[in-house]
Amino acid sequence: MSDHRVAAVPVPVPVAVHEPPYYAVVFTSLRTEGDGGYGETAERMGELVREIPGFLGEDSAREPGGLGITVAYFRDLAGIEAWRTHTEHRAAKAYGREHWYERYSLHIAKVERSHGFERTHG
Amino acid sequence: MSDHRVAAVPVPVPVAVHEPPYYAVVFTSLRTEGDGGYGETAERMGELVREIPGFLGEDSAREPGGLGITVAYFRDLAGIEAWRTHTEHRAAKAYGREHWYERYSLHIAKVERSHGFERTHG
Repeated sequence: MSDHRVAAVPVPVPVAVHEPPYYAVVFTSLRTEGDGGYGETAERMGELVREIPGFLGEDSAREPGGLGITVAYFRDLAGIEAWRTHTEHRAAKAYGREHWYERYSLHIAKVERSHGFERTHG
Repeated sequence: MSDHRVAAVPVPVPVAVHEPPYYAVVFTSLRTEGDGGYGETAERMGELVREIPGFLGEDSAREPGGLGITVAYFRDLAGIEAWRTHTEHRAAKAYGREHWYERYSLHIAKVERSHGFERTHG
């Protein structure tokens, strides 16, 4: 039996739950129409944020034609501040306000409780 | 000029940013295949949560074939506790673990800072 799917993109799973306290940065946005370089920059930002000390991972989902939500997790506020003031990220944010976003909201929150669930098969 | 679109579903906008502190409940999930009553229950839960005192709104996005993220905002922990222990919600969660979710993570977090952006046209 041959399988013609090659190099399939793996389905992402939620970021593993960590021991509180840690921080969540919730970014919820409504995009303008078209790509306009957004995809490429988003990918680049996804690479850069991984270099930030204390970065724990991020989950992202965009409903076609609707809201996009990205939640990035950091061990502490120092990591969030390092990411907030990162030169290339700052430039991308400024460009995004000019071109990519109709609206967005940003919430920085200290996680007090968390848990995860994983289905057991068989 | 006639417009053949009738009763179009309005594009949701991010929940308005409130004055901190308030709470965010981040629920990130990977679904099992098929609907199996999920859509109907999700709609019902969306109605019920609006009756919880201190509920501030929720944003939701699901990437086709990928992660879904729902972020519900509450004024305080009392609202979160009321929702967590709500009888119909508890039943839906138990059913969801049996049927609807491959994995999920849940984070309860106190929002310390937030801001919103809205494009100005013209």
